[in-house]
Amino acid sequence: MTTMRRWDMTGFGRWSLRLEQVPIPEPLPRQVLVKAAAASLNYRDKLVIEHGMGLVLGFPFTPASDLAGTVAAIGEGVTRVRPGDRVITTFFPDWIDGASAGSAKTVDAGTLGGAHQGILADYVALPEAWLVAAPRSLDFAEASTLPCAGLTAWFALVERGHLRAGQSVLVQGTGGVALFGLQIAKAHGAEVFVTSASGEKRERARALDADHAIDRDGWVGAVYQLTADRGIDHILELVGGAHLAQSLEAAAVDGRVSVIGVIEGYDLSAAAGQLLLKSATVQGIRVGHRRALEDLVRAVDVMKLKPVIDRHYALADVPAALDHLDGGPFGKIVITFD
Amino acid sequence: MTTMRRWDMTGFGRWSLRLEQVPIPEPLPRQVLVKAAAASLNYRDKLVIEHGMGLVLGFPFTPASDLAGTVAAIGEGVTRVRPGDRVITTFFPDWIDGASAGSAKTVDAGTLGGAHQGILADYVALPEAWLVAAPRSLDFAEASTLPCAGLTAWFALVERGHLRAGQSVLVQGTGGVALFGLQIAKAHGAEVFVTSASGEKRERARALDADHAIDRDGWVGAVYQLTADRGIDHILELVGGAHLAQSLEAAAVDGRVSVIGVIEGYDLSAAAGQLLLKSATVQGIRVGHRRALEDLVRAVDVMKLKPVIDRHYALADVPAALDHLDGGPFGKIVITFD
Amino acid sequence: MTTMRRWDMTGFGRWSLRLEQVPIPEPLPRQVLVKAAAASLNYRDKLVIEHGMGLVLGFPFTPASDLAGTVAAIGEGVTRVRPGDRVITTFFPDWIDGASAGSAKTVDAGTLGGAHQGILADYVALPEAWLVAAPRSLDFAEASTLPCAGLTAWFALVERGHLRAGQSVLVQGTGGVALFGLQIAKAHGAEVFVTSASGEKRERARALDADHAIDRDGWVGAVYQLTADRGIDHILELVGGAHLAQSLEAAAVDGRVSVIGVIEGYDLSAAAGQLLLKSATVQGIRVGHRRALEDLVRAVDVMKLKPVIDRHYALADVPAALDHLDGGPFGKIVITFD
Amino acid sequence: MTTMRRWDMTGFGRWSLRLEQVPIPEPLPRQVLVKAAAASLNYRDKLVIEHGMGLVLGFPFTPASDLAGTVAAIGEGVTRVRPGDRVITTFFPDWIDGASAGSAKTVDAGTLGGAHQGILADYVALPEAWLVAAPRSLDFAEASTLPCAGLTAWFALVERGHLRAGQSVLVQGTGGVALFGLQIAKAHGAEVFVTSASGEKRERARALDADHAIDRDGWVGAVYQLTADRGIDHILELVGGAHLAQSLEAAAVDGRVSVIGVIEGYDLSAAAGQLLLKSATVQGIRVGHRRALEDLVRAVDVMKLKPVIDRHYALADVPAALDHLDGGPFGKIVITFD
Repeated sequence: MTTMRRWDMTGFGRWSLRLEQVPIPEPLPRQVLVKAAAASLNYRDKLVIEHGMGLVLGFPFTPASDLAGTVAAIGEGVTRVRPGDRVITTFFPDWIDGASAGSAKTVDAGTLGGAHQGILADYVALPEAWLVAAPRSLDFAEASTLPCAGLTAWFALVERGHLRAGQSVLVQGTGGVALFGLQIAKAHGAEVFVTSASGEKRERARALDADHAIDRDGWVGAVYQLTADRGIDHILELVGGAHLAQSLEAAAVDGRVSVIGVIEGYDLSAAAGQLLLKSATVQGIRVGHRRALEDLVRAVDVMKLKPVIDRHYALADVPAALDHLDGGPFGKIVITFD
Repeated sequence: MTTMRRWDMTGFGRWSLRLEQVPIPEPLPRQVLVKAAAASLNYRDKLVIEHGMGLVLGFPFTPASDLAGTVAAIGEGVTRVRPGDRVITTFFPDWIDGASAGSAKTVDAGTLGGAHQGILADYVALPEAWLVAAPRSLDFAEASTLPCAGLTAWFALVERGHLRAGQSVLVQGTGGVALFGLQIAKAHGAEVFVTSASGEKRERARALDADHAIDRDGWVGAVYQLTADRGIDHILELVGGAHLAQSLEAAAVDGRVSVIGVIEGYDLSAAAGQLLLKSATVQGIRVGHRRALEDLVRAVDVMKLKPVIDRHYALADVPAALDHLDGGPFGKIVITFD
Repeated sequence: MTTMRRWDMTGFGRWSLRLEQVPIPEPLPRQVLVKAAAASLNYRDKLVIEHGMGLVLGFPFTPASDLAGTVAAIGEGVTRVRPGDRVITTFFPDWIDGASAGSAKTVDAGTLGGAHQGILADYVALPEAWLVAAPRSLDFAEASTLPCAGLTAWFALVERGHLRAGQSVLVQGTGGVALFGLQIAKAHGAEVFVTSASGEKRERARALDADHAIDRDGWVGAVYQLTADRGIDHILELVGGAHLAQSLEAAAVDGRVSVIGVIEGYDLSAAAGQLLLKSATVQGIRVGHRRALEDLVRAVDVMKLKPVIDRHYALADVPAALDHLDGGPFGKIVITFD
Repeated sequence: MTTMRRWDMTGFGRWSLRLEQVPIPEPLPRQVLVKAAAASLNYRDKLVIEHGMGLVLGFPFTPASDLAGTVAAIGEGVTRVRPGDRVITTFFPDWIDGASAGSAKTVDAGTLGGAHQGILADYVALPEAWLVAAPRSLDFAEASTLPCAGLTAWFALVERGHLRAGQSVLVQGTGGVALFGLQIAKAHGAEVFVTSASGEKRERARALDADHAIDRDGWVGAVYQLTADRGIDHILELVGGAHLAQSLEAAAVDGRVSVIGVIEGYDLSAAAGQLLLKSATVQGIRVGHRRALEDLVRAVDVMKLKPVIDRHYALADVPAALDHLDGGPFGKIVITFD
């Protein structure tokens, strides 16, 4: 077999996506050829496909960043993995640990499925440094959900937030990052609040061990009541825009709001009084670095965390999977390769 | 002598301020009687006098929080100070160290010259826990500037910001907090940027050892140029409102914006992209705790930091001092008692 | 009823302990009268009774520090508690939060049952600041185990150690601090190792959800094997002396050894190479501050943590309880008052 | 010119060092050819030459790690530097940021002049990732002192120690790391103590702005006296062995002892009481990572820090330079290439 399937964009818009038959790549020195087993789609992939999010893409462009698979072959000088190893990709492949790259004027956009070609193909050849061992306790579909959604929640709560048992955590909605936030927080002994406009989704969140699942309408008041006015220590702000103001109202003194999502818009606004008088912290989260992904992998194995997958789609059904993303899945959407 | 002078508000507005002759208080158990030598005025005192900032004040109300003086007498059971000790007040007297009090709904407003009666009087009787030893290297006028303006800059840069040598710091304007920020940052080996609309004030900032004093017009572009696009690690946001957006544009990757002032309004706004892609932190600063004030006092003595006082006024001239505050002083305004 | 029972030492040695009938104290202003329900004994109480640990005690002296009970009456000016509240004591009553007191030469020894009279009595009158609300989810006997043993493990792992899910934690033995360490670590999603010389105690540790219970003989080698040479991120050093050297051998790169116990002696020794090449941290732990105890109380309620009590004794049976302490209990020894 | 000078060891012991004439290397892909201008010797180089410090060296072996020079040529794919750039080497070339590599059993020894060939040659070819831009404000001799001695002091005080103005810092002796510690601490606004057995060196330390230079005899008592018993916040332990016990006696409550040197032996010992009752931290320091070296470079330029060089030697005079190292230089020993 010398050819493989790969999704290519010839321009912006979903109609420009084509499933092509192309040659299987060869790993260059220090590169690894990964045979894909599962890929996870993120809301951001939808935006890249639709308009590129301001990125300059080289067409034909393959979208998506989150891959789980098996090392099929290794190039010269590779030492981090061996053929047969189960691996996952990293979202910011050059961000190994600690401080991130970029400048005030031009931030680093060196992501898979962004500045770099993505992974929606039967095989991809990637530098060895871009891969991390998959958790032993997860299957490929589950493992594929970690690089972006899983790591984002972990980075906000654990790496930046230093979450500890007994603190309160609130996640907005029931998408992929939100449910990872719920599960990671519970595994750290936190008290978890989930907001959702859907009674059915609130029920499902409770089944995942959320302590409180509350309606999006009037959620700040509900938080006051449920916490005896204490408020929330860690909020994952997944809505954005003017919704940040409500998150700061709900925040506890010394509380932390991790800004991740921008569904309601890119123009954040909030009352200064809430920020100042609470000594609150508003922190932008851009997924995370490779070392934190390795920490998450180890934690997943120890915590026995099982990522929530709403639906699996075959590789040929990526368009249907994107439609599902539009509707707001409960957890993650995964593409499986067979 | 059994009576003393004290400024009392009988209601809101400057015209309601009266310099009264009242009895010298007696220190209760665990209280200390302080003979005032100097008091420092803050912009916030102006706002409390004008409209109370939403606080419920008990009239007659004595404004202001920052006092330096000498222990004149001690009540029963006092162990922290002795008669003759030189002391300064704390702004949030019940916030000793670590986490601050209050809830999400009702934040702690227990400040001197706020929920508590203020200090604009020849003598005040205060719980011993509310006092800190004055720095040995400062006179009373200088020492009186630390409890609010000095501590705010210190708390933002050092206690919360973990400032280190080689980092860049930008302060907006040349008021009390800004100039403390400049001096504290220089003493930590940082590279300091000051913005000001006034050429003369920029000159004076340079004389205080600012590395760069730049015009408020187009300051973000100037920062890009002066830092080769790297941006600023620590920004003291003293303007507020929509100005926060500019601070986030000027921030370095992993940069920190400490929100302190709200001159341009209480409605903060900013672009989510800047916050997310830079992993930036926006942190509300509410002065600081007693332990940090003690740290600042020790640091002032070691650094040989001399607070910048724009003008001294006699106690009788508080109204003129408030007028000066309106105009935007260069550094601090101090009231001296003789 | 105007009298109560109280254990008094008239000098050092267990034979000098007497259960006396004495007047019930009155709460002074800002004091609280607590009716005792349960007290927990620590190894340190044994040492204080036997030789005072170098402390200057005022005889008759009442030992022990950890009390759970009900507010029976309050003195003038008390605001933190109300009659009927369920409360526990703090070990270092003047250490509220943040930095601790004392100097390089004379460290703070202001503990209950140390520099201050202890709590082994039907009623105690204490400053209100020395009390913390008991967890809602624990009975009095369980709640009494938190102030010293529970807080020590929490402070080492969480407050100082910033424990996170997926990390490895090792506790030495199965005493009170060790089992709290095990339970707190599991509740944070950590992988937990317990060492014990007793096969039966190892079995009981596994029943408490320890991932690995290993023999004290050759434990470092067992750790290498079980972690594929990675080592342990957090070690609670409860043995002391030359045993520290073994803990540093078992520590992971960037690992942390919290020194708590000194059963094998006060002369710590270790190889510099292990410390340097691993960038390891050795941290002395002296119980913890009140804010951390409040955090622990909230965490206990959220985590549903149930402290492990080896045996309950009646107040009259304190001598038998001390004998039990000699033998090395599995978890805590509690005195109940009825 | 196709050949160059290089110091080679053919075995252990100084007599096995030869200055050879060998071909100038070619940079491979992603490698950089650096033309040496200055190299700095460390005490560790002396030990590697004498007995290898337990490392398995491939003979002929070129010792030393700290090089400053100019990029002479670049291999294929190099993006971090350009010909003509002034650069310095990194000590642990694969440690970029954050967590360090290695396991509990086998720690990472991947240092230049250790597991990797060293740099005592007119030209060296190194992976581009192993280089950092030299500070603009230093000449080559000064710049060559940063990778090991400068970074060690910086890492202990700033990266791990979070040094702040007003804290006290004590360095033992007047070697390279000690004097960097003195200068970095002063640039952060700290109060600095230096111990030395030599009156003349104490005088020179005072000339470098040390606040207190004290005799090694009875230094702990002197610290108590000079700090009014408060003790020292940060101690650079450069002596090792049983001397650690004295450092812990001198440490302030919550103080930190960074263990760096082992002149008096590898068997550390100390009293548990000092460690526990002070909540002290003992931290092993193994130089530091590349990001911290980049931070130090920027700080050196902002602080205008000038490293202290005791003497310059020509490349041919390395044996004399090693003799000088035996005697304990005041600051650094530098080899210059011309």
